[in-house]
Formats: sequence, C-alpha cells, structure tokens
Amino acid sequence: MDIAILLYDRMTALDAIGPYEVLGRVPGVELAYVAVEPGVKRTDQGLGLCADTSIDDVPRPDIVLVPGGPGEEDVRTDERVLDWLRTAHETTTWTTSVCTGSLVLGAAGILQGLRATTYWLALETLRTFGAEPTLERVVEQGKVITAAGVSSGIDMGLTLAARLAGDEVAQTIQLGIEYDPQPPFDAGSPAKAPAFAVDFFKDRNRFSLR
Amino acid sequence: MDIAILLYDRMTALDAIGPYEVLGRVPGVELAYVAVEPGVKRTDQGLGLCADTSIDDVPRPDIVLVPGGPGEEDVRTDERVLDWLRTAHETTTWTTSVCTGSLVLGAAGILQGLRATTYWLALETLRTFGAEPTLERVVEQGKVITAAGVSSGIDMGLTLAARLAGDEVAQTIQLGIEYDPQPPFDAGSPAKAPAFAVDFFKDRNRFSLR
Repeated sequence: MDIAILLYDRMTALDAIGPYEVLGRVPGVELAYVAVEPGVKRTDQGLGLCADTSIDDVPRPDIVLVPGGPGEEDVRTDERVLDWLRTAHETTTWTTSVCTGSLVLGAAGILQGLRATTYWLALETLRTFGAEPTLERVVEQGKVITAAGVSSGIDMGLTLAARLAGDEVAQTIQLGIEYDPQPPFDAGSPAKAPAFAVDFFKDRNRFSLR
Repeated sequence: MDIAILLYDRMTALDAIGPYEVLGRVPGVELAYVAVEPGVKRTDQGLGLCADTSIDDVPRPDIVLVPGGPGEEDVRTDERVLDWLRTAHETTTWTTSVCTGSLVLGAAGILQGLRATTYWLALETLRTFGAEPTLERVVEQGKVITAAGVSSGIDMGLTLAARLAGDEVAQTIQLGIEYDPQPPFDAGSPAKAPAFAVDFFKDRNRFSLR
C-alpha cells in the first residue's frame, strides 16, 4: 500500500511527521515523499526534508496525505498539485490532510459538500471550497479524512491505521510511539486555551509566534 | 538561544520533530540541525532530513536535543558525538533527549546518578550508564531533561518552553500546534496497552512493527 506524502516549502513538519510516524509502521505500507519538483523542501522552521519523488511518478497512490503550513497558500494555487490530487483521488482508498492541508484538498474540489476540518483559525476558509467546517479533531467522510491543526495528525494516523489494519495494530503502534499524551497545560484548542492565547493568534491571523 | 538538534541515520523522526515544533516557536530560539558529518540523514522510515551543520561548528549550543531511534546504537559508540556532548553539556542551559536518545546522553556520562527515562523497553539499559530509570513521561533533573518514547517529546517541548519563556508562551504554542490530544485508543504506555501489544514488542525487543 503506497502512501504519498506531499512535501513543499514552508510546510509545517509535524503535520506530516505525526501521521508518517504512525502510518509508516502499518505492515505493508510504503511511504513516498513527493513534490512537484523533487529535492529539498524547507519547512517553516528551516528544516530540510527530502522529496525523493515527483508527483508525476506516483499518479495513483493508495493514500494521499497533504500537510499544512504557511506555504500551503502557494500550493493551493498550483494547478500541477491540484491536477495530481484530482487524478489521484479518483482511485485512492483514502485521501487525507492535516491542518491547512485541507485547504489544498478543498481547492482541488475534493471537499465539496463534505464536513471537514482544518487549523482552527482557517475553518471559515473551508466554506469557500464548498465544505462544511467543523471543529472536530478528525473528520471522516467516506474516504476523505481531514484532521485539525498540526499535532492532530497523530490522532488521524491512529484512526486511519485502525481502518487499514485493525484496532489491534493501531493499538500496538500507539504503544510503539508511546503516545500517552501528558501535556503540562490544557490549552490545545480555542475552547480550552486562555483568552490571551486565542487573542494572540486572532490578532495576527497566523499561527506562528514568530 | 541556539538549540542544536542532533540528526543521524535511522533516527526516529517524531522524536526530534515533536520538540522541534514546540521549541522552534519560542521567541528568540534558533534551531540548528547538526550531525557528525553534515548532509542528508535517513530516518528509520527512509525520510531524508538535512543536517546542515557539523557538530564541530556548534560546540557550545544553549540547548542540546538528542532524539532516539534504531540508529542510536551506532551514535552511542561514536566518540565524536560523545566528546561533543560532554563539551557542550559543560555550558548548556538545558541538555535534553527523547526516547533512546537518553542512552546517548548516558554513554556520554551525563546521566550518572540522575533519574532518567527513555523508551519503555530500554529503561533497564539506562542502569548501565549509572542512571536510575523511571517510567515517567518527562524527567527533569537540574538542567537535564529526558523524555519517554517517541511522541513524549511534544510534552517535553512544552515543559521546556515554559521554563524558557514562561507558562503563557508555552500555552500559546500549545494552541498554535493545536495539541489537544484525542487518541482513538488508550494504549500509549505499557501500563495501559493491551497485553498483546506489550508482548509484541517484548518478544521482538524492538519498537517497530516492521
């Protein structure tokens, strides 16, 4: 089973690495790191990730994963990406995104009429693509799974691992990555975070502190 | 504030990317991706990560982060790494690890007499380095912080972010990465996981399913 993970400049690494770490452990899965132009892509924090494969060489992956990040705005208007997604989606078993990656799926027309999620500050933007935004962490609509911001891709990965290989495999992977979250604060959603944190991002309309 | 993140072949990506995603958002932090030999390092799932900088060029980082993964066994016996860690540790404000990265700190003599944690299957190995193993998720001993397996680095990152910049910044980052974990199962520690999952890893004495 081939999973194509789209890489691009100014993406957010954890968006991709969360589900990558889970799904890459599912027996029989092969991960492909793809981009419009193969080569090194620099994340929003300057880390170089190697896109080894052109999207043209993986036209029909079983699963597509689109991460988000500040660079998503360029990807969303790149017809080469959108054409690839539309074609791939015809035959995928699962089409997935994390964070603002769902806006790329939306721009490709894949979320039309579906409930979907994204980074909390970007939820309303989903409407422009005909999707119905919802502040859930993982949203499954047929074969389309969208996950909320950044770290939610780990939860999405475990959900999808269970679909692919059963609950026992997903639970074994959860132990394998020791995913027993114990955040020192409880500020991970706009509903739970202190007002100063919510206001910080709303005032800036971006999700980096820098 | 410079944070040197050690990269090496067959490391586990999420070990590094969890705290990277948190700590890179702390105002004033500069991340350096370092290795004995700069270049592309391939994770245990084949993803290429760019180590842009030689450890020799960052002899005195403010913070050191050592991730774990199957390749750790080679790193633990590489005197160039151990010498670098020993020298850096003399002047760091924080010396940190995730997963089996703590075994590298241990081999450098940094954990002697300290409580420390690591991937759950590797806990007893910590004793060989004079450390006292404990099955906690994040263990702070003076300026040394060790975290448990793979995903625990996110919790460690938030703990350290609060130390570096205060609770409000850490909470704002938590919202920024939407870290409101909702795993679909509760199998993320040996105490919580079903017996079949624990036995799976114990029988193989490794933490990949593949």
